[in-house]
Amino acid sequence: MPTILVKSGGEAAMPEWQRHFAEFAPGLEVRWWDDPTVAPDTVDFVLCWDPDAGRLAGLPNLKVIFGSGAGVDLITADPALPRHLPLMRMAPGGATQRMGEFVCWAALSLLKDARQMALNQAAAKWAYVEPEGTAHETPVGIMGLGNMGSRACAMLQGLGFPVRGWSRTRKHLPGVTCFAGPDELDAFLAETKILVCLLPATAETRGILAAPLLAKLPRGAGLVNVGRGSHQNIEDIIAALESGQLGGAVLDVFATEPLAADHPAWTHPKIIVTPHVASLPSRRERASYVAEAIADFTAGRPLANLYDHARGY
Amino acid sequence: MPTILVKSGGEAAMPEWQRHFAEFAPGLEVRWWDDPTVAPDTVDFVLCWDPDAGRLAGLPNLKVIFGSGAGVDLITADPALPRHLPLMRMAPGGATQRMGEFVCWAALSLLKDARQMALNQAAAKWAYVEPEGTAHETPVGIMGLGNMGSRACAMLQGLGFPVRGWSRTRKHLPGVTCFAGPDELDAFLAETKILVCLLPATAETRGILAAPLLAKLPRGAGLVNVGRGSHQNIEDIIAALESGQLGGAVLDVFATEPLAADHPAWTHPKIIVTPHVASLPSRRERASYVAEAIADFTAGRPLANLYDHARGY
Repeated sequence: MPTILVKSGGEAAMPEWQRHFAEFAPGLEVRWWDDPTVAPDTVDFVLCWDPDAGRLAGLPNLKVIFGSGAGVDLITADPALPRHLPLMRMAPGGATQRMGEFVCWAALSLLKDARQMALNQAAAKWAYVEPEGTAHETPVGIMGLGNMGSRACAMLQGLGFPVRGWSRTRKHLPGVTCFAGPDELDAFLAETKILVCLLPATAETRGILAAPLLAKLPRGAGLVNVGRGSHQNIEDIIAALESGQLGGAVLDVFATEPLAADHPAWTHPKIIVTPHVASLPSRRERASYVAEAIADFTAGRPLANLYDHARGY
Repeated sequence: MPTILVKSGGEAAMPEWQRHFAEFAPGLEVRWWDDPTVAPDTVDFVLCWDPDAGRLAGLPNLKVIFGSGAGVDLITADPALPRHLPLMRMAPGGATQRMGEFVCWAALSLLKDARQMALNQAAAKWAYVEPEGTAHETPVGIMGLGNMGSRACAMLQGLGFPVRGWSRTRKHLPGVTCFAGPDELDAFLAETKILVCLLPATAETRGILAAPLLAKLPRGAGLVNVGRGSHQNIEDIIAALESGQLGGAVLDVFATEPLAADHPAWTHPKIIVTPHVASLPSRRERASYVAEAIADFTAGRPLANLYDHARGY
């Protein structure tokens, strides 16, 4: 019987994973990552987010590695990663839709100053706030125009936001003012009132959300990071919020997760912190996606959403 | 020189009103509602939300009453209201757009459980929450299909929500499953996972958001009230949240505003309280709208968005 080793949500989540896999892949043995009774040579598949370095290399019959999130950089960070094996990113249809919903929620939260309203609610304070402009007057700029970025563009347009996009290679999206490459980054930023980072985590994008970039946005711009924690320099973001260069931020990702209880982002009056949930599919959806991919692999059909080691995402 | 008396935002807001009217209606004298030096017979126009009963009847040369919000029921509640005068609702273009944005923000906030995320942020708690379905699986039902309701329907559809609508008389909106009248209310509610109240405040809609209606929603449904405080029975809403019949609520309006500091809605873990801001235009937009209407009236052109005493909105 084929076996999958799971490291996603901790051991406590295993009964749920087993129940969902029983529904979609009844013939699959579903075992916890640290279960000492699993013989390494019986493992065919793994589903994980942050594997212990070297562990995957010790599974001689491993066939496919499934990332449990859209980004797989904590898997590719393993120096001993068996790079000849297919590494599949988690990209069920629901994840793209959820990301679009989250980006729209975040953009509207910045437009309406939802953070201040939440602080006022906590203080039982009924406060009139002179409203800012509408979505029509608030261009949103999306960095990263893959599946998720493209969907987010369309959904933002439906709300009335003018949308701009920036990507490594040039894209053409209906109604979106598209910019490409380092040469066009400044022009992209200059008229972006809400910046959304949906970039993959690569060497080129590491630390991109830092003081030099933030300084190129219009004063008082908003920031949404739904990319990766490694994209942002949190000290620079906080400094920009303090100076008024940034007007607010929604941060779903952090360099170290979970975010430490004493991290200043939690209490900052202009930061909405969310726990890396932007595109998170349910476990049931993820189990269904992996079960389908295992069926494809077993039948010799090609796998989609594979990580490309040369490209870096 | 024509004179407008203003009661909106308190005396503290008067310099701002005067500045905005100076831009859009330079010939207009702008005076505070309680200014004792204003002779009643010099008042041509008023801009107000909640006039003291009888006050309007004491202005012998009053020509037009401008409500400072979309609803004018606190004006029509005055038994001595001069009903022969045109009463104009506040409906600049930006208000309809803002309402659509707010309804989308509220629906997404319920879908993503933003209230719980805000409470977790306040507790510096990084919590995994198994996600609910996407917008595709969450039908939103709008009660009230006027300008604002219709725009909200279209914007919600752009996010992927299936949209249902209910109104007094039957409407036809693209892609929206429309219900009409008391006979179709139960069918409308039965499959509505997020209920949005955008009804006008009339005798028929008073107290409609109460236990009998809430019981007809699917268990765990969300509620958004952006209509009026008089639509809701807050005790029933809280009881439904406690029992799990409602899963969450976004309440922008209350029977008594400002909401008292000791009101249980402020601290309820499933209620997002916002201070009646859903469609609020900026003062500048409102001054512009009123100035344009005064110019129309003066030139003998018809006024739009007039209150209809027979219809009740």
